[in-house]
Amino acid sequence: MIVGARPRLQQIILEIWKPLTILFAWDVAVTIFHRFMPIKEPALPVALFGTAIALFLGFRTNAAYARWWEARTLWGALINASRSMARLCRNVLPAGPEAEAIVLRQISFAHAMRCRLRGQDPTEDIKRLAGKEAAEVAAERTNRPNALLEDMSRIVSGARTDGKIDTIQQSLFERVMIDIANAQGGMERIKNTPLPNGFEFMPNFFTRLFCVLLPISLVETLDLYTPIGSTLIGMIFLAALRIGQDLTDPFANTVHDVPLSTMCRTIEIDLLESLGRKGPGPLPPVAGTQW
Amino acid sequence: MIVGARPRLQQIILEIWKPLTILFAWDVAVTIFHRFMPIKEPALPVALFGTAIALFLGFRTNAAYARWWEARTLWGALINASRSMARLCRNVLPAGPEAEAIVLRQISFAHAMRCRLRGQDPTEDIKRLAGKEAAEVAAERTNRPNALLEDMSRIVSGARTDGKIDTIQQSLFERVMIDIANAQGGMERIKNTPLPNGFEFMPNFFTRLFCVLLPISLVETLDLYTPIGSTLIGMIFLAALRIGQDLTDPFANTVHDVPLSTMCRTIEIDLLESLGRKGPGPLPPVAGTQW
Amino acid sequence: MIVGARPRLQQIILEIWKPLTILFAWDVAVTIFHRFMPIKEPALPVALFGTAIALFLGFRTNAAYARWWEARTLWGALINASRSMARLCRNVLPAGPEAEAIVLRQISFAHAMRCRLRGQDPTEDIKRLAGKEAAEVAAERTNRPNALLEDMSRIVSGARTDGKIDTIQQSLFERVMIDIANAQGGMERIKNTPLPNGFEFMPNFFTRLFCVLLPISLVETLDLYTPIGSTLIGMIFLAALRIGQDLTDPFANTVHDVPLSTMCRTIEIDLLESLGRKGPGPLPPVAGTQW
Amino acid sequence: MIVGARPRLQQIILEIWKPLTILFAWDVAVTIFHRFMPIKEPALPVALFGTAIALFLGFRTNAAYARWWEARTLWGALINASRSMARLCRNVLPAGPEAEAIVLRQISFAHAMRCRLRGQDPTEDIKRLAGKEAAEVAAERTNRPNALLEDMSRIVSGARTDGKIDTIQQSLFERVMIDIANAQGGMERIKNTPLPNGFEFMPNFFTRLFCVLLPISLVETLDLYTPIGSTLIGMIFLAALRIGQDLTDPFANTVHDVPLSTMCRTIEIDLLESLGRKGPGPLPPVAGTQW
Amino acid sequence: MIVGARPRLQQIILEIWKPLTILFAWDVAVTIFHRFMPIKEPALPVALFGTAIALFLGFRTNAAYARWWEARTLWGALINASRSMARLCRNVLPAGPEAEAIVLRQISFAHAMRCRLRGQDPTEDIKRLAGKEAAEVAAERTNRPNALLEDMSRIVSGARTDGKIDTIQQSLFERVMIDIANAQGGMERIKNTPLPNGFEFMPNFFTRLFCVLLPISLVETLDLYTPIGSTLIGMIFLAALRIGQDLTDPFANTVHDVPLSTMCRTIEIDLLESLGRKGPGPLPPVAGTQW
Repeated sequence: MIVGARPRLQQIILEIWKPLTILFAWDVAVTIFHRFMPIKEPALPVALFGTAIALFLGFRTNAAYARWWEARTLWGALINASRSMARLCRNVLPAGPEAEAIVLRQISFAHAMRCRLRGQDPTEDIKRLAGKEAAEVAAERTNRPNALLEDMSRIVSGARTDGKIDTIQQSLFERVMIDIANAQGGMERIKNTPLPNGFEFMPNFFTRLFCVLLPISLVETLDLYTPIGSTLIGMIFLAALRIGQDLTDPFANTVHDVPLSTMCRTIEIDLLESLGRKGPGPLPPVAGTQW
Repeated sequence: MIVGARPRLQQIILEIWKPLTILFAWDVAVTIFHRFMPIKEPALPVALFGTAIALFLGFRTNAAYARWWEARTLWGALINASRSMARLCRNVLPAGPEAEAIVLRQISFAHAMRCRLRGQDPTEDIKRLAGKEAAEVAAERTNRPNALLEDMSRIVSGARTDGKIDTIQQSLFERVMIDIANAQGGMERIKNTPLPNGFEFMPNFFTRLFCVLLPISLVETLDLYTPIGSTLIGMIFLAALRIGQDLTDPFANTVHDVPLSTMCRTIEIDLLESLGRKGPGPLPPVAGTQW
Repeated sequence: MIVGARPRLQQIILEIWKPLTILFAWDVAVTIFHRFMPIKEPALPVALFGTAIALFLGFRTNAAYARWWEARTLWGALINASRSMARLCRNVLPAGPEAEAIVLRQISFAHAMRCRLRGQDPTEDIKRLAGKEAAEVAAERTNRPNALLEDMSRIVSGARTDGKIDTIQQSLFERVMIDIANAQGGMERIKNTPLPNGFEFMPNFFTRLFCVLLPISLVETLDLYTPIGSTLIGMIFLAALRIGQDLTDPFANTVHDVPLSTMCRTIEIDLLESLGRKGPGPLPPVAGTQW
Repeated sequence: MIVGARPRLQQIILEIWKPLTILFAWDVAVTIFHRFMPIKEPALPVALFGTAIALFLGFRTNAAYARWWEARTLWGALINASRSMARLCRNVLPAGPEAEAIVLRQISFAHAMRCRLRGQDPTEDIKRLAGKEAAEVAAERTNRPNALLEDMSRIVSGARTDGKIDTIQQSLFERVMIDIANAQGGMERIKNTPLPNGFEFMPNFFTRLFCVLLPISLVETLDLYTPIGSTLIGMIFLAALRIGQDLTDPFANTVHDVPLSTMCRTIEIDLLESLGRKGPGPLPPVAGTQW
Repeated sequence: MIVGARPRLQQIILEIWKPLTILFAWDVAVTIFHRFMPIKEPALPVALFGTAIALFLGFRTNAAYARWWEARTLWGALINASRSMARLCRNVLPAGPEAEAIVLRQISFAHAMRCRLRGQDPTEDIKRLAGKEAAEVAAERTNRPNALLEDMSRIVSGARTDGKIDTIQQSLFERVMIDIANAQGGMERIKNTPLPNGFEFMPNFFTRLFCVLLPISLVETLDLYTPIGSTLIGMIFLAALRIGQDLTDPFANTVHDVPLSTMCRTIEIDLLESLGRKGPGPLPPVAGTQW
């Protein structure tokens, strides 16, 4: 996630300079061609075409933003549930190794989830926090975060069998774990379900076609100003296209990602401090990007 | 669900080449007719007509996408609840045949639900997983998934009668089953309730009428360029129409379906591994389509 | 709810032929008048007017569709809760008359709700299912479905007093009844709260005014084509108006209703089968309409 | 809330005749001025201006309708929770004075909430229903509905201390009270949070400015038809403005209010009948308005 | 949050007079330049450009308003949960120091949350309400509100260990604390996640560019009226831009903030009165602004 006001313009130019250059070159080419061979250009219904494309882009941008914000909200739900889990561990479980084991697995769960979404290996993080044994339990399963969650449930169950908590208190833990499972499932849903075919391909295709046709249609009225007028309009459509593309996959390990690493760190700080340990500092942005 | 960037263009051409050809042929015919019999064409208010249709298409596409995404979300809820059910079976129920029986019925439930939505027979899948007896219990009822859910509830009830769990733990199971019943009901709602009459028929009718009138209205200004200009505008409206149609019934057993088979496999993997068994591998896409 | 692809066009023509004929007659009249008395028509800003009306119609259609879909979703919630209620009756209550009494009242509740929304008398249905006594209990109260729900709660309470279930299991039943009460309240909200005055009256008034002014404004440019061009544009606005009207009251006992009878039958089938009885067959559509 | 089809037109004319007259007078004045001093009017970009205003009005109307509908939904939630509370009182509490005391306070809560939102004094209603003592308890506190809710909680707590219910049943009551507190908070949120400054002021200002400029811009093309054409367009924008204004504060004690009195009466009927008493009849609309 | 009808216009002028003056100066400059050097201006497709920008602004305003309203709703949820917490303390806990300690920490939580969002120091408020000890507990942790919540949970846990409540009643408290943790997480989400880069930068850039190009494009048709026409259109776009900017960060300690201080005071009044103490009066608006 890009933060801070300054690097924004630079960031954006970096991202769209290539299509912008191509667009401008094409607009100039059409203008030059028109100067030397002033054939009568067809009065294509560009306005109607532009309106139709704006409609398409509108849907895409809307849907993409909703995905991005839902992704952030689901991670927020994971943060909330992590804190609730730590609060229960500290105040419902009697003092003992169980509380710490659960809280450390909860932090590991967040890291495992981040790695699952970004296609990375969580082993080191799990080992560092919850120990080698927990990392092995997770590694045995296709779905590592789910394995960690089941392991937490197992520890709670053991505490109940040992008479440290009763079944009502066990229910409290299980209820929070259901919230965590729901957050996990939502993240996987966004990761595994791209926008429908038509929402991806159509705006891409029609916007580019529009940029190609635009100077041809404008050159007769704008003449030498064509490159300016045409590039300007084209730029705004390309920018809208780009924004939609950036937001559509919020777990793609790009600068437009929902800041998973930062949120994992937040969980780590809050939960370690809940255990009475010292947490690490918050994760600073790197070159204007919060990872 | 179509995945992968490459087969998309091909896929789309495959789907709209027929209406596109008809559209182009009509545009050419109008142009030729105009060349030989240049009668004065009426200046139909095409822009106003196009705007009104865009409004209609907008509603339809919006509603269709919302249905598709809700369908996916409901299946996500089923995945989440399945995992929670498995976690409870493993950690709340004492070791014994009940846990396995419930988890296997839960996997069967997903398959039965998939078959119910796609109009297929789930008997083989239920038999393979939960055994012949469970398949027979399901077959006796009109609503097989519901029968399986009641059977799971029966096993939990038995465990409570046997004193293996108390009523609080039974409540935990029943609460997850309420979530599952809610997901099932939502899926059936989308399956059994088509978009209202007007949302289906009107865009279809008016978009096609628009495509018929478009060249007649443009031919006088565009002349020989009519087929290009008219087909271009028509194509974008037909594409929007098509996208809406594809998304409106996400359980129709077409390439645009929410990937039910893949999600059933996900449930199967996660739940079998939770039982300590080896799950099958994930379902690969077939020719760019995730079923 | 209208189903099936064929009767749709017929259905729609049936519904809008009257305004369409009036519209066409008016368009022809204006054209003829113009031929004989070609006074200069004012260049009314029809496009701006049309855009403003489209905005109005947009809001109305959106709000109406949201009401219709929420109505369907609330009935879906009632179906889900009914199944959960039956599951609890079968597996939480010990065998005995209570389970059957509750399930039969639950089916009656759905019928009573349907009748309440459509202004019909539920007595026969309640008698047929839950017996004369339950019908009398319901008839004593202004709000019959609520009376049935309280009666179900009374039976559960009796089972607890008799020691057949404990207070935790009673809570489970009461929790499902809270869901049912919420669904009921939502349905009554949609039934008793029409769209705001302005959302109903304004689109009606302005759309018709627009249809009256349209040919006057177009006749000078379209001349003899006026009836065609004007009727076409008018038709699309009238259709949008109509769709909004049809959806706005989903419990009005018209062909556009959410299919209450069908859903009551679904509940009846699923719940009777849960009791081990034979349910009736599903309700077929009548002349393309699912009631 | 305005109900019934007939008084609607009358209602609307009553509400907008004043701005409409001013608008028409201005349009006539501009036209007359133009006849005598036909200076060249500037070709202001009215269409672009109108589109931009439509955008503003669109947001406002959307947000206002969402507030109105949420207000109605929150009152619906209060109705639902009231019925659930009565059901619990009747079937979970043993026969005794507590049940009646709680139900009567619940009805009083609805009246107190209505009065709080409309700036009225609830003392009479609370006295009439729950007695002088409850009215005094409420009067001691700034937030009277909350005081009544705490009083209900106190009675439930007493029943538990007396051993009439156990802590599980107490939880059931408290859970419903949490729903009630959430509904109350939501209503206060809508009451205390006006739409943002810009959403209120901007559409007001620009729409009126637009109405002032419109005839100046149209008079050259429309000439004598200016008052008709300009008033027509202006009217539709003023109407949209008005609708937004009416819906934005649904608890303002105007005819556009969500019908609080009617809903309080619904609660009174349902809950008194649940106590076995005779409820009053439903509140009829007064001159086409449901209060 | 700005309240009251009068200071609104003044407020708005105060906020946009600077860009408005620059805009007007530029428009005048272009007009004068055109009078002295009437070169042929290019007919830039301003309408298409304006429509595209309106689309962008539309998304931004929508997303910003949704953030603002969600922020208010989350604080509403905190108010609701605070009241529920106080109700539980009074009626579930037996008389004793615990109830008061929890309620005072709950009020402190709200103040701590306000300070966290606005970057202020909550120590004084916590000390004043919950005592020095609670302030120290909070100060030890990075996340002070969370520390207070854990402290409340600790007191509840102590009451259970002392046998003053059972585990079911403890669950009730923990359930409300989960709601509080969810509200806290949501507020932090809005605070820490700015709108995506493109939603912030693009409308800013393109709207200003549009304002620069507008007079150049209009000057030939409007001539001397250019400054009026161009400033008018520009003003409406700048206003839309501004509204979005104001709402996008509802916790920025500006006049457009969600009124955190006022809501903290509401919680303080309601909860202190619930303890039987006298609450302070409500916070009056300062110069038309509710803080």
